[in-house]
Amino acid sequence: MTSRGDANPAANPSDDGHPEFKFSSHTSFEDLRAKVHTFAEERDWDQYHTPRNLLLAMVGEVGELSEIFQWKGEVKSGIPDWSEKDKVHLGQELSDVLIYLIRLAQKCHIDLPAAALDKIALNALKYPADRVKGSNKKYSEYEGEEEKR
Amino acid sequence: MTSRGDANPAANPSDDGHPEFKFSSHTSFEDLRAKVHTFAEERDWDQYHTPRNLLLAMVGEVGELSEIFQWKGEVKSGIPDWSEKDKVHLGQELSDVLIYLIRLAQKCHIDLPAAALDKIALNALKYPADRVKGSNKKYSEYEGEEEKR
Amino acid sequence: MTSRGDANPAANPSDDGHPEFKFSSHTSFEDLRAKVHTFAEERDWDQYHTPRNLLLAMVGEVGELSEIFQWKGEVKSGIPDWSEKDKVHLGQELSDVLIYLIRLAQKCHIDLPAAALDKIALNALKYPADRVKGSNKKYSEYEGEEEKR
Amino acid sequence: MTSRGDANPAANPSDDGHPEFKFSSHTSFEDLRAKVHTFAEERDWDQYHTPRNLLLAMVGEVGELSEIFQWKGEVKSGIPDWSEKDKVHLGQELSDVLIYLIRLAQKCHIDLPAAALDKIALNALKYPADRVKGSNKKYSEYEGEEEKR
Repeated sequence: MTSRGDANPAANPSDDGHPEFKFSSHTSFEDLRAKVHTFAEERDWDQYHTPRNLLLAMVGEVGELSEIFQWKGEVKSGIPDWSEKDKVHLGQELSDVLIYLIRLAQKCHIDLPAAALDKIALNALKYPADRVKGSNKKYSEYEGEEEKR
Repeated sequence: MTSRGDANPAANPSDDGHPEFKFSSHTSFEDLRAKVHTFAEERDWDQYHTPRNLLLAMVGEVGELSEIFQWKGEVKSGIPDWSEKDKVHLGQELSDVLIYLIRLAQKCHIDLPAAALDKIALNALKYPADRVKGSNKKYSEYEGEEEKR
Repeated sequence: MTSRGDANPAANPSDDGHPEFKFSSHTSFEDLRAKVHTFAEERDWDQYHTPRNLLLAMVGEVGELSEIFQWKGEVKSGIPDWSEKDKVHLGQELSDVLIYLIRLAQKCHIDLPAAALDKIALNALKYPADRVKGSNKKYSEYEGEEEKR
Repeated sequence: MTSRGDANPAANPSDDGHPEFKFSSHTSFEDLRAKVHTFAEERDWDQYHTPRNLLLAMVGEVGELSEIFQWKGEVKSGIPDWSEKDKVHLGQELSDVLIYLIRLAQKCHIDLPAAALDKIALNALKYPADRVKGSNKKYSEYEGEEEKR
């Protein structure tokens, strides 16, 4: 079942006791953007895809994603005790958020993968590993600053 | 300015009069997942990255993204009249949503790019181009169904 | 139709050309909190109403509310051109957000109406009418500050 | 500290071991709507308060509310171990969501308290206490149906 990617666990163990989970590595952001763009063009839906329409559509999908988690209490990394059906549903809702996010970026002419790499580099300067490592307290404080960003 | 990607406009004109905007094509979802994972590991932040913590962090970033658009009224495709500063800020908030979305998918062992390709294929069956093309009314009805999904 | 309250327009005209729209004045926040609490108690649902469960449920309802507005482009004050059915649906989704917000406040022991009055007083100090009146620019700047709050 | 309302605990014990927490009972929805309306009128801000602007502003505040909960893991009813400062901050963010929700309802001419009472009555028909009481499984199923609403 491609949506789970259980077929490609990596060798090195991660924090949550599982081997580090990886994505199938062949798909690029541009591949997905192009597919979504073609999908909309073929249906003449570009006319509805204004930035704020897409943003609200994404908020709608974030709501559907939240509904999956809303009554579950804390959820374990790797969601080991979820049914196959629930995992597929989760994959679909995560995908709907991603599809509208990518579409919104295109419609705003933002090069999303490049912007994300820039942001990670910026965060690395903002939260130097040697300063923030470990401490919940430091982390919270740093998050506190980030909220004010 | 990498975040805008104005350096790579494509040849074919799109619906909004601009040439089709494309992403820099070299970055894969797995590339970004690995970078985000390494960033968290180096800071010992995996311990805070439970599925519901990450979901709420993503909702927080969706809020910051919405704040950019909240007082603007309708916004044109390509945001031609936004300042460079505002475009960079938009790229950063879109990136923050993406980073937490990818992190959430990893922590739930969902192969996000594969799930997204599955979802687009599913949507293609659900909204056949020849049936839905054009009509706002049809579109709304289909969206209506989608809301019930 | 109680959800629209068109039966109680006030005398003085407001900015949007309509008389100022008012709510039916007899319901207090405590009235609604008590009804929602009784509803949950009768169904033994308190056990599911932890703060983060309620927050995610509220985010889910915000998503459903956004779905109503997502493909509409700009919407006129008073939504004069919406169908009765759509207005009722909107009233239901606004209510779902309110119900979970009130429930979340109760479960966090926050006196929501008192907190809201405090917040309005705080905002009045923060945005003195004589300083901010009118100017879009000032407004944006002040909002800018507010985003940083 | 009005925002906490610890001054008015009720006699009967509630599910979470505390006496049932109540709101200060004198404030009505119409009281708050009128205060928010006057606040905006005095600043000539009505011009920015279109339905979709207000919806996005509310989503922004929902994001700030989520940021308070994002790194906390599960949170106890009554948030007994939160600092006074954090409780006040929580009261402010809950209030910001409420203020924009009420403003959005006014601008859409939805009588929010009446709509909420209608919705609770509708939910009572949809989830009869004797049918849904207790069982997590039933609850989830009913929620499942509700998600499809």
